[in-house]
Amino acid sequence: MELKKKDFLALQELDLDELEELIAYTQKTKNLTDTPLQGKTVVNLLLTSSIHTRLAMETAVQQLGGHSIVVDFSSENWSLLWDENAQVDTDNTEHVKDVAKVLSRYGDLIAVHHIPDTGNWRQDRQDSVIKNLARYSSIPVLNLESALFNPCQALADIITMKEHVKNLRGWKAVLTWSYHPTISPMSSANSFALIASKYGMDLTIACPSGYELDPGILKLADKNARTNDGSVEITNNLEEGVSGAVVVYAANWRSIKHYSNPEEEKQDRENHKHWVINSGHMEKTDGGYLLHPLPIRRNVSIQSAVLDEKNSLIYEQAANRLHAKKALLSILA
Amino acid sequence: MELKKKDFLALQELDLDELEELIAYTQKTKNLTDTPLQGKTVVNLLLTSSIHTRLAMETAVQQLGGHSIVVDFSSENWSLLWDENAQVDTDNTEHVKDVAKVLSRYGDLIAVHHIPDTGNWRQDRQDSVIKNLARYSSIPVLNLESALFNPCQALADIITMKEHVKNLRGWKAVLTWSYHPTISPMSSANSFALIASKYGMDLTIACPSGYELDPGILKLADKNARTNDGSVEITNNLEEGVSGAVVVYAANWRSIKHYSNPEEEKQDRENHKHWVINSGHMEKTDGGYLLHPLPIRRNVSIQSAVLDEKNSLIYEQAANRLHAKKALLSILA
Amino acid sequence: MELKKKDFLALQELDLDELEELIAYTQKTKNLTDTPLQGKTVVNLLLTSSIHTRLAMETAVQQLGGHSIVVDFSSENWSLLWDENAQVDTDNTEHVKDVAKVLSRYGDLIAVHHIPDTGNWRQDRQDSVIKNLARYSSIPVLNLESALFNPCQALADIITMKEHVKNLRGWKAVLTWSYHPTISPMSSANSFALIASKYGMDLTIACPSGYELDPGILKLADKNARTNDGSVEITNNLEEGVSGAVVVYAANWRSIKHYSNPEEEKQDRENHKHWVINSGHMEKTDGGYLLHPLPIRRNVSIQSAVLDEKNSLIYEQAANRLHAKKALLSILA
Repeated sequence: MELKKKDFLALQELDLDELEELIAYTQKTKNLTDTPLQGKTVVNLLLTSSIHTRLAMETAVQQLGGHSIVVDFSSENWSLLWDENAQVDTDNTEHVKDVAKVLSRYGDLIAVHHIPDTGNWRQDRQDSVIKNLARYSSIPVLNLESALFNPCQALADIITMKEHVKNLRGWKAVLTWSYHPTISPMSSANSFALIASKYGMDLTIACPSGYELDPGILKLADKNARTNDGSVEITNNLEEGVSGAVVVYAANWRSIKHYSNPEEEKQDRENHKHWVINSGHMEKTDGGYLLHPLPIRRNVSIQSAVLDEKNSLIYEQAANRLHAKKALLSILA
Repeated sequence: MELKKKDFLALQELDLDELEELIAYTQKTKNLTDTPLQGKTVVNLLLTSSIHTRLAMETAVQQLGGHSIVVDFSSENWSLLWDENAQVDTDNTEHVKDVAKVLSRYGDLIAVHHIPDTGNWRQDRQDSVIKNLARYSSIPVLNLESALFNPCQALADIITMKEHVKNLRGWKAVLTWSYHPTISPMSSANSFALIASKYGMDLTIACPSGYELDPGILKLADKNARTNDGSVEITNNLEEGVSGAVVVYAANWRSIKHYSNPEEEKQDRENHKHWVINSGHMEKTDGGYLLHPLPIRRNVSIQSAVLDEKNSLIYEQAANRLHAKKALLSILA
Repeated sequence: MELKKKDFLALQELDLDELEELIAYTQKTKNLTDTPLQGKTVVNLLLTSSIHTRLAMETAVQQLGGHSIVVDFSSENWSLLWDENAQVDTDNTEHVKDVAKVLSRYGDLIAVHHIPDTGNWRQDRQDSVIKNLARYSSIPVLNLESALFNPCQALADIITMKEHVKNLRGWKAVLTWSYHPTISPMSSANSFALIASKYGMDLTIACPSGYELDPGILKLADKNARTNDGSVEITNNLEEGVSGAVVVYAANWRSIKHYSNPEEEKQDRENHKHWVINSGHMEKTDGGYLLHPLPIRRNVSIQSAVLDEKNSLIYEQAANRLHAKKALLSILA
């Protein structure tokens, strides 16, 4: 299949037909041993380190017959200027424009993992690094996770749900915050809210007060829901959230309220240590399936036994993340 | 060929028939250019960094047509909880169980290099990290070196010896400590003691007092020797050790006596600076061949000229280490 | 094609016939999708880190069907003894001889990036590390950049010039220093001076006083020029340098005068901040093409607009660097 755009930055950019085609393609190609990336080079720019992303990407590219080049900016001494108008100074050695143009002459696809963290959410939510890479490169750019979106994860999420819940429309899904001692990005939660609402689910977002998702994302989710006979509700009560849900999507994400002050947020998080999904919560659901984007801290975020129950889909979801990446690579590269 | 167990943690676990078959298989496949790992992914978890292990593994996997993913824990920011009952805390982000289960859905084999160093030998000799990985993963786990064992090295060692000494049974081999300024693992020495005794050699272990091998290993070596008409002796005299040997296996290993106090051991080592293999020692042997697992410090551990003499098999042994890894990968993955 | 020598350390070592054959071969193989490195392993020893070199090398090897192993000495804990007579001590764990001999049994080619920086130019200009690797290894050694030479870059440079200037002989090329806040190696400038003079160009080297190239290199360039009806001139005046040139090769390189005192050089560099190539300079040329080995600091070294003009060949040159590496790998490995 082909996508309309050169780059793949967010699942939300696809209309429902294109999305359905992508999901069908991903499922159809799961067990293929074709090597459509034979002779092709995927450049993985990990501006933010992520061992899980690296493992999944290297595996995906390899299984498709291609080759990965990984640049982990935390260990490489490579400081780029990402803003197109910025003046190169002593510390920043190169401009995104030149890097994108050179990489476009070497490889076949640029995959980017970048969670900006300037302390200014209005700035970070622009995702300007990946947008500038897409703008200047002539080869496709794939978003592996940005401030706003985690589209490969969302593709894995929707596929995992569809494989267990026959018709998503009208069923309740809860996207719930679960405790984590350190600050996590909002991307997976945003992408889940958008895909669940696009599929007409009755989405409840459960989180402590102050951890509500970005208003722009909520607006998009609302629009998705209205178009597809779904709904979006927000609650600060975990028990209410999980009640009657067929899907419990647990994740952790940071607070926009505390965005500029991580120390303040860390302290605030300690007030929400009880947001741990346990078997009592699961009993309140409608035979609900558990999803989580991993990595997971057992007993800290979710009770260990809950993760090992038969309704836990966390490993299937992880496997589908690999399939999602493989499908997107096959289509884009 | 096939091995009885899913995982390969120690050569000692194989009976003599299986071992003979493995050696024959390794020698037979040395010059093959087959690619049995085509489309397969080997995940190398280097919990302890080792540039030599990485180079050999990447080469082995590649020559077999497969792909390596290397995770070097010294440079990656990935802190796992390896004990199955431990509580995940702030610093340790994930449990071995979840990692093993996710990697089992991505790759085809997990290779592990891990020399634990908690200061407690009774704990470290359990090799619980690799055992837990083997327990939770559904794909094979290959031991690249642990606290107790270095089975790929031992396979290379026995092959190198068999290629030069027609019948090993009844011939004298000396496993000798040679000086090194820093502390080294016991694994290669342990594995050599076990394989030499299994092949019925008259094994002498020469080392300074306080550097005797682990009692459990010595007991296994004794049992091997009794079953196969060999013998195991220990001496604290280097000259006596090398005398009449057809194989001189030099290596360095740390002291169990000083295990909990590395500074104390470093000082003690200075008393044994004369444990340097020189041409005088080689003249006392029975035309003895020199083996060493590398890397080697010329003149510090072994006289430089001795390393370059025709009876030095160190480069053949290094080449056989690659062949051993390739054979094991072909069989397991 | 085949080269006379096992190793490829400098383009200057080739006679003009061999050079012409190499250029023709590189151009001929640009668009081939052959995989002559199938099953082959290239070991990249990056003693000095270089993200650009790594990206180009990994891509080149992959596109040829081979596999790369990258050892970045800045992040790996691997301290070798490179001088053949040196005594191994506590910090340096291994001798170049043993490393070269082991790598020769694993891989098919060793590629080396090493800009020595001892503070002593007479010592560093010996390039003894790469020479010793070539001496002890039985597989080919390819120079990716050393104190003196950058032969892959020079091959890309000459190809890029030949693709735009019909007959190089007798045309003026200027190799000009352009400002950069930090200290850069001399290798690319040296290699350009040698290749331009070998092709009978009228070469002007423009640089601030104190930044003249190594006398040994200038002597070689003079000899090249005399043999091929060219000329070599040096000026400390940028305007004079660019005047009438058909090729403007801008680069930055360090000062031999300040070699032992980098802080002194950094201060001195501030006196030459006006050595920025701008459109005024380009207007003084004879429709001159702009070349630069990249990475480039826009507006600091060259005016941003000049880099984006149609006479700027910087991206073609970068693409040719990939082709040059691929051609050399195909020939050597």
